[in-house]
Amino acid sequence: MSDKQPKKKIPQMTISRLARYLNCLSLLPEEYDKEISSKELAARIDLKPTQVRQDFHHFGGFGQAGYRYKVEDLIIGLERILGLDNLQNMIIVGVGHLGQAVANYRKFERLGLNLVGLFDINPRLIGLTIRDIRVRDIDDIPEVIKEHKVSIGIITTPADVAQETANLMVINGIKAIWNFSPKNISAPHNVVIQNEHLSVGLMTLSYKLKTATEEYNTK
Amino acid sequence: MSDKQPKKKIPQMTISRLARYLNCLSLLPEEYDKEISSKELAARIDLKPTQVRQDFHHFGGFGQAGYRYKVEDLIIGLERILGLDNLQNMIIVGVGHLGQAVANYRKFERLGLNLVGLFDINPRLIGLTIRDIRVRDIDDIPEVIKEHKVSIGIITTPADVAQETANLMVINGIKAIWNFSPKNISAPHNVVIQNEHLSVGLMTLSYKLKTATEEYNTK
Repeated sequence: MSDKQPKKKIPQMTISRLARYLNCLSLLPEEYDKEISSKELAARIDLKPTQVRQDFHHFGGFGQAGYRYKVEDLIIGLERILGLDNLQNMIIVGVGHLGQAVANYRKFERLGLNLVGLFDINPRLIGLTIRDIRVRDIDDIPEVIKEHKVSIGIITTPADVAQETANLMVINGIKAIWNFSPKNISAPHNVVIQNEHLSVGLMTLSYKLKTATEEYNTK
Repeated sequence: MSDKQPKKKIPQMTISRLARYLNCLSLLPEEYDKEISSKELAARIDLKPTQVRQDFHHFGGFGQAGYRYKVEDLIIGLERILGLDNLQNMIIVGVGHLGQAVANYRKFERLGLNLVGLFDINPRLIGLTIRDIRVRDIDDIPEVIKEHKVSIGIITTPADVAQETANLMVINGIKAIWNFSPKNISAPHNVVIQNEHLSVGLMTLSYKLKTATEEYNTK
C-alpha cells in the first residue's frame, strides 16, 4: 500500500470487485463490526474466498490467508485504492426521475463525494430545491464547475442529449463522467467515463433465475 | 451451446461480463452491424481480447481466436445463456423517483422483460398512470402476480421497508428479486436476489479518476 510501489493499471473487473468489497463492508451487520474472514466476505457477495484473498494480497498490507481481517483497515485500504480518500465535488445534469433518485442517494457523501450542483433545461424544474441544492439552468454549469472545482459530472439526461451534455462538461474542465443514459458517450482520452447500464443487473438476475429454475426442474 | 452439455454454475463475474458483452453488442454503431472481432469488442468495454475469447470459448459454438464473430449469433447465444430467450413478467414496488426511472427504462422490453405492475402505499401515487400501467396499492400485489405469472420483483422502496417488501413478494410466488435499496435483503434459498448498488459504479469512476490524475502528474 506504500506510494513507493510501482503503479500499474488494475483490471476493470478487479476494480469492480474492490468496489463491491467496500460496499459490502460498509453495509455489514453488527456481528462483523470489527473483523471478518475472507470466507465470510466472499459468501456475502457470491465470490470464492480464494478470489478475495488474491485480490487483497495483490494490493498488499492486508494480511494472510486464514486471517480475520480488521474491517476498519480493509475499509481504509480500499478507500485509498479507489481514490475515495480525497473529497470530490460532483454535479448532476438532468433532474428527471433518475437524476432526482441519484441526487437522493445519501451514501455518496459517506464516500467523500459531494453533490454541489443540479442542472436542467426544463423551466418547471429550474428553481426547485432538492437536498438544499437549487436546480439551475445548464447555462450556469461553467460558473458552478469553476466555483466548486467540480471533478465529476453525472449525466441523467435523455439519451439524445447525453453526448452534448458530456461535451459541455468536458470543455468546462470536468475530468470524470458517470453516464446513466443508455447510449455510450465519448470524451477526450484524459477524461474518464463510467457508463452505467441498468440492464446489466437485470440480465444477471435473469441468468440466476434461469439457473435456479433448471436446478429445481432436475431435482 | 447444446442442451446436452453438462450444466455447471458460471461464476458471478463471468455472468457480469456476458451481460456487458450483450449490452455492448446491442448498442453497437452501424459499422459493426454484422461482424465484430474479440479485439474490437474488448476495446469497447475495457477488457482484454483474450478474456473475451476465453469467455466465448467457454460457452462453445461461437468461433475461434482471430475470427470475426457474427453479431447476431453472439446476441442470440448470449440471450440464451442469460435466460433472456423466454418472456418474463416483472412488477415494481415503490414508485418514487427511482421506481419511475426504472419503469421508464425502455430497454428492458427488448430483453424480453415485461413490466406488468406498479405498486406503492402513497395515496398520491396510487391511480397515476406510467407507461400505460396504473399504479396500484400494494394490497393488489397477490392478484397481479397470480394473473400475470410474475417471476421478477423489483424493489425501489425506501431501505426501511425493503425486507418486508421482499417477504411480500416471496410469499406470493416471486422467484427473482432485483433490489435497489441500499440495504441487502434476504430470501429463501430458492429465490434469487440481485442487489444493485449504485455506489459501485461511482467507486469505479473514482478509481479511474485517481489513476488518470496520477498518470497526468507523473508525465
